[in-house]
Amino acid sequence: MSPDTDRPSTVADLLLDRLAGLGLDRLFGVPGDYSLRMLDHVVAHPRITWTGGTNELNAGYAADGYARMRGIGAVCTTFGVGELSAMNAIAGAYAEYVPVLHVVGAPATVAQDEHRRVHHTLGDGLFRHFADMYGEITCAGAVLTAENAVTEIDRVLGTMMATSRPGYLLIAADVAEAPVAADVPAPPRAVATSDAGSLAAFTASAARLFEGIRATDEMCVLAGLLVHRLGGTGALQDLLGTDVPHASTLWSKSVVDESAGSFLGTYVGAAGPSADVRDRVEQAGVLVVAGVQFTDLNTGLFSFHLRRAATIELEADRARVGEEVFDGVVLTDALRAITPLVRGLTRGIDSPPPASAPTADGDAWGQTALAPGAALLMTEPAAAGGAWGQTALWNGISDALRPDDIVAADQGTSFYGMGTHRLPSGVTFLGQPLWASIGWSLPALLGACLASPGRRGVLLIGDGAAQMTAQELTTFARTGVAPVVVVVDNDGYTVERAIHGPTEPYNDIARWDWTAAPQFLGLTGWAAHRVTSADGLAEALAEHDRTGAGTVLQAVVPADDVPELLATLTRMLGAPVRP
Amino acid sequence: MSPDTDRPSTVADLLLDRLAGLGLDRLFGVPGDYSLRMLDHVVAHPRITWTGGTNELNAGYAADGYARMRGIGAVCTTFGVGELSAMNAIAGAYAEYVPVLHVVGAPATVAQDEHRRVHHTLGDGLFRHFADMYGEITCAGAVLTAENAVTEIDRVLGTMMATSRPGYLLIAADVAEAPVAADVPAPPRAVATSDAGSLAAFTASAARLFEGIRATDEMCVLAGLLVHRLGGTGALQDLLGTDVPHASTLWSKSVVDESAGSFLGTYVGAAGPSADVRDRVEQAGVLVVAGVQFTDLNTGLFSFHLRRAATIELEADRARVGEEVFDGVVLTDALRAITPLVRGLTRGIDSPPPASAPTADGDAWGQTALAPGAALLMTEPAAAGGAWGQTALWNGISDALRPDDIVAADQGTSFYGMGTHRLPSGVTFLGQPLWASIGWSLPALLGACLASPGRRGVLLIGDGAAQMTAQELTTFARTGVAPVVVVVDNDGYTVERAIHGPTEPYNDIARWDWTAAPQFLGLTGWAAHRVTSADGLAEALAEHDRTGAGTVLQAVVPADDVPELLATLTRMLGAPVRP
Repeated sequence: MSPDTDRPSTVADLLLDRLAGLGLDRLFGVPGDYSLRMLDHVVAHPRITWTGGTNELNAGYAADGYARMRGIGAVCTTFGVGELSAMNAIAGAYAEYVPVLHVVGAPATVAQDEHRRVHHTLGDGLFRHFADMYGEITCAGAVLTAENAVTEIDRVLGTMMATSRPGYLLIAADVAEAPVAADVPAPPRAVATSDAGSLAAFTASAARLFEGIRATDEMCVLAGLLVHRLGGTGALQDLLGTDVPHASTLWSKSVVDESAGSFLGTYVGAAGPSADVRDRVEQAGVLVVAGVQFTDLNTGLFSFHLRRAATIELEADRARVGEEVFDGVVLTDALRAITPLVRGLTRGIDSPPPASAPTADGDAWGQTALAPGAALLMTEPAAAGGAWGQTALWNGISDALRPDDIVAADQGTSFYGMGTHRLPSGVTFLGQPLWASIGWSLPALLGACLASPGRRGVLLIGDGAAQMTAQELTTFARTGVAPVVVVVDNDGYTVERAIHGPTEPYNDIARWDWTAAPQFLGLTGWAAHRVTSADGLAEALAEHDRTGAGTVLQAVVPADDVPELLATLTRMLGAPVRP
Repeated sequence: MSPDTDRPSTVADLLLDRLAGLGLDRLFGVPGDYSLRMLDHVVAHPRITWTGGTNELNAGYAADGYARMRGIGAVCTTFGVGELSAMNAIAGAYAEYVPVLHVVGAPATVAQDEHRRVHHTLGDGLFRHFADMYGEITCAGAVLTAENAVTEIDRVLGTMMATSRPGYLLIAADVAEAPVAADVPAPPRAVATSDAGSLAAFTASAARLFEGIRATDEMCVLAGLLVHRLGGTGALQDLLGTDVPHASTLWSKSVVDESAGSFLGTYVGAAGPSADVRDRVEQAGVLVVAGVQFTDLNTGLFSFHLRRAATIELEADRARVGEEVFDGVVLTDALRAITPLVRGLTRGIDSPPPASAPTADGDAWGQTALAPGAALLMTEPAAAGGAWGQTALWNGISDALRPDDIVAADQGTSFYGMGTHRLPSGVTFLGQPLWASIGWSLPALLGACLASPGRRGVLLIGDGAAQMTAQELTTFARTGVAPVVVVVDNDGYTVERAIHGPTEPYNDIARWDWTAAPQFLGLTGWAAHRVTSADGLAEALAEHDRTGAGTVLQAVVPADDVPELLATLTRMLGAPVRP
């Protein structure tokens, strides 16, 4: 093979070169006999490193975490057993707009053509069941042949990059080894472009709306996840400058620099801890809503309350000004188009908050908040925190965060506990509030750290979630990543207890001694501590600061203690949402 | 609720009653907010116990192991994240004819009807993606409503029991709580029945074939997995009596009593270790092939060579005598129909082996053996074993097996190492040679032991496989199951090394210290030993015999040592199959 430095000589090489061209330098996965030949090409590739996971779900999660940092990720598994194990990870990547390519090694073409009843199949001689299933959770997929490989690889990768969603490639063992022509063209560059007429009309309409305000402090920007996923972070930063008040959502946390003076905080509808953030967003004279997804956990269970007439809403390829819709306007172009309008306002960072009219229901935008119990059947009120408990824990960790840390918070008390804290500059916050698969954060942080050498990883995860994917700690040690791993030991599925069944046995889990994790999992050189006080926490975090050694902290907190935001959400579900 | 003892009052109760009626007393799963109300009914049920797994894949595997013992199993997860995590387990149950019901708790009907963008979904307001995916890997599925629940529950369970395949039920949180009518009829009993005419014709044709032999030792029975799955074990035993020579396959290992005098051994085509077994099967005057699946790993890579003219082949609902096909003949009926024919033969247990004509290729039945490298691209020869190594390990464990043990062997060197050993009476051997998902055996043994209180569990698993599902050991301890767990520590994916890439980094794994497993995973009262010799193995197994305490044995063997059968298979793939 002659990958990368020369013309690719096989389908496998071509695929790897294309991935490397998109910025990928690491492939996650688990080997299997149908993919072993493919992996020979991976190991031989000059720019791509293989990282084996302990299982395929974890490898898929790691590829997701990697892709969130790099803008592209990939996982390679074997047929059937491997690809189905990773399915939850790929579906999560779909829900959360993460472009992860799943490469599946399949039985050789001759075995497929002869309908052989080979292992890792359903025994019916058919080989498309799982590719068909993947159609539900990927933006594009292909069954490669020697003939279609070049076209299909570029089509699938192109669609992934354009939509920021996962893709799927099924490659029979012999197809991976098939030669490709010497004159393979360079990959097409997929760039989303706006319709010029629509963009102009949008800009003119936006300008009319901006004429209603004079200073930047009369406006507000609500920054959503898609700004990051669709490559609009730089354009957003240009628009915000230093003086435009802005907020983000739980899902888009850390898409903007939370240490900025004009950052207001996190907007969670009626559930947010700060009335000021809520008022500044909901009563802005002009509200720019950029790439925000209005999902349940991102909106305080649909308790958001925005004024359509005052809002400019930017979606992936559509924009609205008030009730006017402009199709074919790409998010990044729209951000660039309104930036001069914002710059034309008086700088108003020190002005008092705007005195907008109080929100009228007739003007409200959004769905009705869910009736109590309607969607989730949540009813139980949450318990309050004590002196040492969740509040002290998240405060202590928040205090210890350093600029440029990568913080992964699992979708339980960890996410809600850290979600309302303001992060130091350059910190990346990884959460999964739409897909919300517990256990995800542990392998995802591994992938994120491997994508970003030199940045510290901080994992915040409940004990129930950590038990799901614990074995992947071993891969941190194997790859030389030394994070701080905080396991919130509260003896069960506390987020579920808060929702329903606080004392029911189904929310119990086994008690583990996390201080033995380094010995069992071969985490050579790692430290492990049991933490039961704020001082103990601070001391352990300071030790990690000094030594830089991978560290497991088993933070023991009361079983019924939950973060304030989660308590608010569960209270809202037990009472009418509208205050 | 008034489950079981009275009329069921809700859909959840009805489902649980139906499962209990089929013999199920334990439901595996992981709680999630969409399934918590359902679980209230589980904990309240007088005959069903909830067993939470550390993750959904493991819970699915446990339900599979349980169902292999009980004839029915069930796993309950939440929507999206949970159901997709368990997908590999359900697909494996499909491939291996294991009737596992997957019960999925879904968002409330009102949220679905309003297309709410709630968590654990793809964010598109659609709720059928995953149910559609499950259609590929289940025999029947339904989205329950209050109106269709009774009909659909009985339809799905009935199809599962008739086909011995998994099923799927999606139950919105409110539907689980919906009342059912007081006059729910008793569940229909699905009994597969033969077409009377076909059965008579089959019997007459079989009788003509039996006229060609005089004594039982001129015939042979090859017993396959479907005999067990379709409830034919008793009928088969009646047919075999004490004098009919018989063999089983790797996939059907322990379907017959391997301590019987007339048991020949395991037939693996040309790969089998015993030429005598091969000759007795392939040259029998009458060969009864009962419920055998001719898959790659079950046939020595399709190297079986049977004479169609001498064969009576029984499938689930079809029989053949030579080239004659009889549709609508159910396996169990066919076994009963030929039993009198067998009883009419002279008892010939001490006769010399039959002097059948040598097999002529023109008369051969089956597929061509796979050409070298055609399906799997296996090439490397396997290394030979040393003094302490795989051979000594499997001999030592075989010697220590007791009647009625449940032995689960993971689909790597463990399966091939134990597959050729003759088992004591009453031992159940659990393997997964079609689906072949490594890591499966650990949770599967948990389920099997919980289904069979009082029987000892013995787990045989490679280190790479064990890392996939290791956390489920904690549930053995939580539920009071005390197995012997033998982790074959050979520093990587040895079965893959034997196939391809013996020294490639993708077959390496991290080294774990399994003696620390009890401390980390909370296995209170368990023992753990590192074993490096036959004596050490014998001593540790004897200790388990004395104490009955759960035991982890880390058996350290050379990385390149493989069991003889696996060595043969990989050699066969490097050379023409027919010797």
